[in-house]
Amino acid sequence: MAGMNAKAPSPETLRRLKEAAGPKGWSEDASEIAPHLVEWREKYRGTTPLLLKPCSTQDVAAIVKICAETRTPLVPQGGNTGLVGGQIPNGEVLLSLKRLNHVRAIDRDNNTLTVESGCILADVQKTAGEADRLFPLSLSAEGSATIGGTISTNAGGTNVLRYGNARDLVLGLEVVLADGRVWDGLRGLRKDNTGYDLKQLFIGAEGTLGVITAAVLKLFPRPRTRETAVVAVPDPEAAVALLHRMQSASGGAVTGFELMPQLGLAFVLRHIAGARAPFAADHPWVVLIELTSSARTSALRSALEETLTLESDKGLVRDAVIARNEREADDFWRLRDSMSEAQKPEGGSIKHDVSVPLSRITAFLKEASEAVVAAEPGVRVVAFGHLGDGNIHFNLSQPVGAEKAAFLARWQTLSDIVHAIVAAHGGSISAEHGLGVMKRDEITRYKSAVEIDLMRQIKRTLDPLNIMNPGKVVLP
Amino acid sequence: MAGMNAKAPSPETLRRLKEAAGPKGWSEDASEIAPHLVEWREKYRGTTPLLLKPCSTQDVAAIVKICAETRTPLVPQGGNTGLVGGQIPNGEVLLSLKRLNHVRAIDRDNNTLTVESGCILADVQKTAGEADRLFPLSLSAEGSATIGGTISTNAGGTNVLRYGNARDLVLGLEVVLADGRVWDGLRGLRKDNTGYDLKQLFIGAEGTLGVITAAVLKLFPRPRTRETAVVAVPDPEAAVALLHRMQSASGGAVTGFELMPQLGLAFVLRHIAGARAPFAADHPWVVLIELTSSARTSALRSALEETLTLESDKGLVRDAVIARNEREADDFWRLRDSMSEAQKPEGGSIKHDVSVPLSRITAFLKEASEAVVAAEPGVRVVAFGHLGDGNIHFNLSQPVGAEKAAFLARWQTLSDIVHAIVAAHGGSISAEHGLGVMKRDEITRYKSAVEIDLMRQIKRTLDPLNIMNPGKVVLP
Repeated sequence: MAGMNAKAPSPETLRRLKEAAGPKGWSEDASEIAPHLVEWREKYRGTTPLLLKPCSTQDVAAIVKICAETRTPLVPQGGNTGLVGGQIPNGEVLLSLKRLNHVRAIDRDNNTLTVESGCILADVQKTAGEADRLFPLSLSAEGSATIGGTISTNAGGTNVLRYGNARDLVLGLEVVLADGRVWDGLRGLRKDNTGYDLKQLFIGAEGTLGVITAAVLKLFPRPRTRETAVVAVPDPEAAVALLHRMQSASGGAVTGFELMPQLGLAFVLRHIAGARAPFAADHPWVVLIELTSSARTSALRSALEETLTLESDKGLVRDAVIARNEREADDFWRLRDSMSEAQKPEGGSIKHDVSVPLSRITAFLKEASEAVVAAEPGVRVVAFGHLGDGNIHFNLSQPVGAEKAAFLARWQTLSDIVHAIVAAHGGSISAEHGLGVMKRDEITRYKSAVEIDLMRQIKRTLDPLNIMNPGKVVLP
Repeated sequence: MAGMNAKAPSPETLRRLKEAAGPKGWSEDASEIAPHLVEWREKYRGTTPLLLKPCSTQDVAAIVKICAETRTPLVPQGGNTGLVGGQIPNGEVLLSLKRLNHVRAIDRDNNTLTVESGCILADVQKTAGEADRLFPLSLSAEGSATIGGTISTNAGGTNVLRYGNARDLVLGLEVVLADGRVWDGLRGLRKDNTGYDLKQLFIGAEGTLGVITAAVLKLFPRPRTRETAVVAVPDPEAAVALLHRMQSASGGAVTGFELMPQLGLAFVLRHIAGARAPFAADHPWVVLIELTSSARTSALRSALEETLTLESDKGLVRDAVIARNEREADDFWRLRDSMSEAQKPEGGSIKHDVSVPLSRITAFLKEASEAVVAAEPGVRVVAFGHLGDGNIHFNLSQPVGAEKAAFLARWQTLSDIVHAIVAAHGGSISAEHGLGVMKRDEITRYKSAVEIDLMRQIKRTLDPLNIMNPGKVVLP
């Protein structure tokens, strides 16, 4: 799907690459390579002549140096959980970072953790937890996503509202550049104004400018209090207003603020075992609110109860249930987390990962919903997600009784309609997932020629031979 | 002080530049120009053939386009409050952004404020406040610093611990590039993964890669509760431990955590009118703690009192006073804010704006203090600052009775000693103030050749003619 395949490397180049990766550092075994070549939604399938799996930065550097000398393109890969095809090779050498997975240092006083890029995100969270600290980045693929991939794609997830995206959680990086040199930028400083902030170039670049091999991550105090509620609201506008009230009343303790539409909840209740309806009646929109604090405190519960009561009286809140224990809180989250899965039994689903300014959420949802229904009568809009960040997963389930393949064939048409409305509201057509190959060409319609040209200049400067994940993000 | 002067532009170039800036958009009046040519500590003095003061992005773009065509270097300037000579021209055309000072938009629902770069920082804070929001960046020069200069230097200040540096407070930028094209990156999104994050290049670049003309800033709920205390601790290690306890106990509400040494306090009490000693006895170190919340809450006071009592029992806290009202809180802050000024009557002062990981603060302070006293017997160390960020203003007052000029002549020698110890602890020789011309060459001793080369590549790519604030930050 990603265009032309790379030219096959010569046997001599392959031999040198294997030597650089060490005896256990490579594979040509098709069954070992296979899972690296398909993206989990099976939207992208690739090929590679060689899987490299070095276990040290020095070995990565040696590999990239050979690639530069021989003009051999390579594709870096972490846990292979990306959704836009960025990690799938099309004939290039595949560089898996999964064996580069040591914890290099933990510094509790400095609230930092230095890890190699192949560490699994869930393990990073666990390591932080064992030191009585929090690494807040959390997303559904955290059991297999690597920290390197997470940083390379500037991943988001459910805690962005409070703690930011991956970019905000990185203090320092170690990167193997496109010529094989190693940039050691592993600093653990909160303030450092000594020139251009080079790490920003590699965060979110999807491996197109260099290979991230290690990172210094920010840690936070571990939460000791969690309050979770589901709240029925009349419309998204009320949800946005409620978010601001809740932020003020809780002193900025809102960690999650997730929007769920009635139809999405109905799908979850219909298809997900054990899911229970939070309310006796149906409501057009439900928000899941989570407040957390590192203090053991009753203040969050008070803020939550008082705000919900107050806003009930004003009509902003129609009904609300506060979790009485951890199990109930987890049940509420399961409603939200199952929303994508619950769409599957309903047939084909066309997905959009978009963001708009919070002030435009209401208008965007109204206009986009009307436009897709006009273009595809009977289409069922399931718009949910990280409302607190302005990030909506604007998913479309096929009309009841429609043919799945025919509906999915309408992907580009419907997507064009949605993305045009996103753009008109100053939004982004890829809030979390990146460009990869999926949106590489489409983005040129929404960014100015000046911006695309700046991106190309950066690409050509840092990867002049176009060997770093070529064909992804931007063409040189 | 910054090396060679730029070649004078031709009369025709000057005529074209004046025309582009419009009738009120330029000056050759020496008395009007004079205050733009000297940095406020009088460490840097410059010259310019022409002061340009355009009032629109289009005019800035027209000016830069002429500069590019004629290879005329220019120096952008905001409020002229920089401390490292970055804003002072050495014969270049001077581009003041102060008339580019409109508020373009405020979006309360999105918590964003769009301003032009000449807006004064204090006015930006005020505009946010009038909308019942907080723009948290605060520093002593805020009455004259512009937001453009603040962003161009990635300024820090007293609220970084809670809200981050300028970089963390910018969602979008508008920039005039070195060839005169305008990049409109004025997005107000919390999540946008559509390619390289170009704004990061211009933030903190001190005007060497382009001219920032406008920005979308993040706003926050306005604080409604403030608790302020001064706390005597036995040593900096106790201060770091106390910071972590206070963060946990308050749920991350610590907004300020400032370290003050006994000698610095003594200077303040001796020289600053109205300053009052917080404690009856002398203590080696005092920290100023500020907790804030957008909620009206007694929880902060409880967390503060309980933590101080608990840590008193454990010996981490020797004495503590909590402000009973706003006036007392302001008095505490005045002690901290006067510390630099109070050094002046004590003679010459050699200043360092450094940061180290929080875990290294104690070792750094001990080693650096011993080393400077060994090199300059009688030198008086006044190390104070933003402990919460690992950012210490490691200032040295001359020995009692020494000759000021002779002491200041030792600046480079003492500075080399301090910076080497900073580097050994993985720190930064410019935490807040940037490189400008002051530290442009020195930084090459502390950064790897790879990093300097990357910076040069970026400079050459975005400013191939070397006309944007040449000679600052990095040589191409």
